[in-house]
Amino acid sequence: MRAGVPKKTLADAAGVLERIAPSKPSQPVLAHVYLEAVPGGLVMRATNGEVDLELLVPAEVEGSGAALVPAALFGQLVRSLPGEYAELRLGPEGLELEGGSFSTRIAVADPETFPPFPEPEGEKGKVAAEALAKALSRVRYAAAQEEYRAIFRGIQLEFDQDRFRAVATDGFRLALYDVPEGAGFSAKRVLPARSADELVRLVKDTAGPLELAAGEGRLWAKGERFQIALALMEGSFPDYERVIPERFVLEATLDAEALRQAIERLRVLADRQSQRIDLAFSEDGLELAAEGEYGRGRERVPAEIQGETPLVAAFNAQYLADALKGLKGALRFRLSGPATPSLLESEEEPGYRAVVVPLRV
Amino acid sequence: MRAGVPKKTLADAAGVLERIAPSKPSQPVLAHVYLEAVPGGLVMRATNGEVDLELLVPAEVEGSGAALVPAALFGQLVRSLPGEYAELRLGPEGLELEGGSFSTRIAVADPETFPPFPEPEGEKGKVAAEALAKALSRVRYAAAQEEYRAIFRGIQLEFDQDRFRAVATDGFRLALYDVPEGAGFSAKRVLPARSADELVRLVKDTAGPLELAAGEGRLWAKGERFQIALALMEGSFPDYERVIPERFVLEATLDAEALRQAIERLRVLADRQSQRIDLAFSEDGLELAAEGEYGRGRERVPAEIQGETPLVAAFNAQYLADALKGLKGALRFRLSGPATPSLLESEEEPGYRAVVVPLRV
Repeated sequence: MRAGVPKKTLADAAGVLERIAPSKPSQPVLAHVYLEAVPGGLVMRATNGEVDLELLVPAEVEGSGAALVPAALFGQLVRSLPGEYAELRLGPEGLELEGGSFSTRIAVADPETFPPFPEPEGEKGKVAAEALAKALSRVRYAAAQEEYRAIFRGIQLEFDQDRFRAVATDGFRLALYDVPEGAGFSAKRVLPARSADELVRLVKDTAGPLELAAGEGRLWAKGERFQIALALMEGSFPDYERVIPERFVLEATLDAEALRQAIERLRVLADRQSQRIDLAFSEDGLELAAEGEYGRGRERVPAEIQGETPLVAAFNAQYLADALKGLKGALRFRLSGPATPSLLESEEEPGYRAVVVPLRV
Repeated sequence: MRAGVPKKTLADAAGVLERIAPSKPSQPVLAHVYLEAVPGGLVMRATNGEVDLELLVPAEVEGSGAALVPAALFGQLVRSLPGEYAELRLGPEGLELEGGSFSTRIAVADPETFPPFPEPEGEKGKVAAEALAKALSRVRYAAAQEEYRAIFRGIQLEFDQDRFRAVATDGFRLALYDVPEGAGFSAKRVLPARSADELVRLVKDTAGPLELAAGEGRLWAKGERFQIALALMEGSFPDYERVIPERFVLEATLDAEALRQAIERLRVLADRQSQRIDLAFSEDGLELAAEGEYGRGRERVPAEIQGETPLVAAFNAQYLADALKGLKGALRFRLSGPATPSLLESEEEPGYRAVVVPLRV
């Protein structure tokens, strides 16, 4: 087989697959990219056991054939090719790759040894790619890094007829994002946060709908030129709805970025262990203060306050900064009390809500 | 004392000093920046025992006083200050730092405990700051990372009445850079490569002359608003002149960047241990080839050849790539034979010469 592909197209695909293919695989075959010539293009595939990804790369193809190429080497070679155009030729002695005045032949492995792409099963439906990427990336920070309950390292996707939601929590904070678009089916599935990251990277610049299939063990997503299968987490996600406060004693409206920047400044001075930062809400607005072994600092942030003032609550500065990251425009900071959960809502991103619990002081 | 400083000026100075001050110091006092109000500005100083740096930061100053502030904390705080202007006030309770609506007070330590800036001694002269930075950064790569002979981790500066030179070698390759400007004195001094890096960062954007003093144990450099003292290496630098070839059997003239890019591509395929890449010079030009466990590759690079063709020599691809890094325009690749040292010269940087020894094959 022979295939001609614009270099950039091939390099982009190889880069995405190289990230999936494990560099220290449990089975050597997983360090490869599966490459197959089909009419009109190249099918390229990688898997790490958790995430299976298949890309269709448009190419001028003659003949057919398949091979496994070392993922990292192939990626490096394709990226460094001179010229605009890459030519691939698969023969009995390996894969020849040419670009400009450069040519190479690399050893290939038997394509039959590569795991087949898992067949979609379960509930089927559709979501907008961009909305799914947005929802997952917005709540990602609240998933646990390490935790005795593995399920906290996941992001739950809740699909319904008229909306879908992404939600993550590590037991100390919670983030959720609602999209008012039906998926065409009802199901809850928990994705490992790292697999969700791959899905986000893949679809964030994709316009149009994704076809979904939610099986018991996997979630599939299919776009125009890719399909991805993500192994799901077992176990049930915590019953988080009860920690979302509904009654509030105070509501502050302020600029999300101004608040985040003040927190970032004061964090430097906060106690390293507790990361404590004090928020004092009064009729005049909000004053933040932090104190640690090196000194103390304070800063005023303009805020419109409604409710019972004065109110002082202490928070983990990191948690607040995470919840505010990337938010612009007006923020509603709603407190249910000095020691009970607070709710953050963004006027520019109405689907987003974050719950942060004050520190006990 | 009270001082007002544009935030950016203070942040830049704090950043430079923070890099010098060790984060895990042998003595706790070294993790601080020395800060002193003088008429017209702030003197700020840091040392790691190897490099002593003093900056004069222009400021509106009232009163006098000195203090030690934790280097990393001070840097972080100053960088994150809101607004354009920083105000510092030193009082009995610490250093107050204000910017915009943010204010902080940090604990300070006794300035008397900080090591004094070393007094310049030895031969005195001048060099152009830019030329010194260029010479040091051009030869830096050839200094050894780790080596049984510590002196290989240094860069030798050779000052003379009518020129100065920087030279580095790790025993396998050599780089030197000649500047046709006298320093006003004759002396050879070996700087630790890492200290040279600090000197380069400090002076690379400085126009005008640097005052130098070359003592037995230290090299001083003084600009308009800084002075730096660098501890020198002991021991004598190898007698490198004898490895610079003077007679050649072949000379190739080719584009430095085209050669480097071809080498970078082929490196991926080269044997990992030896990094071997073959250069075949013929009447038609240069063909490069590499072969390793995953396959092989080759590439032609246009070259004008004079001398005895054909000639094939093998090189360490990393060494060649290092020697070519950043070079533009025409390169003269001069070979004394297939197994004896080669010399690289740049037409655009006539002061630069690199010696690379072929691999034994």
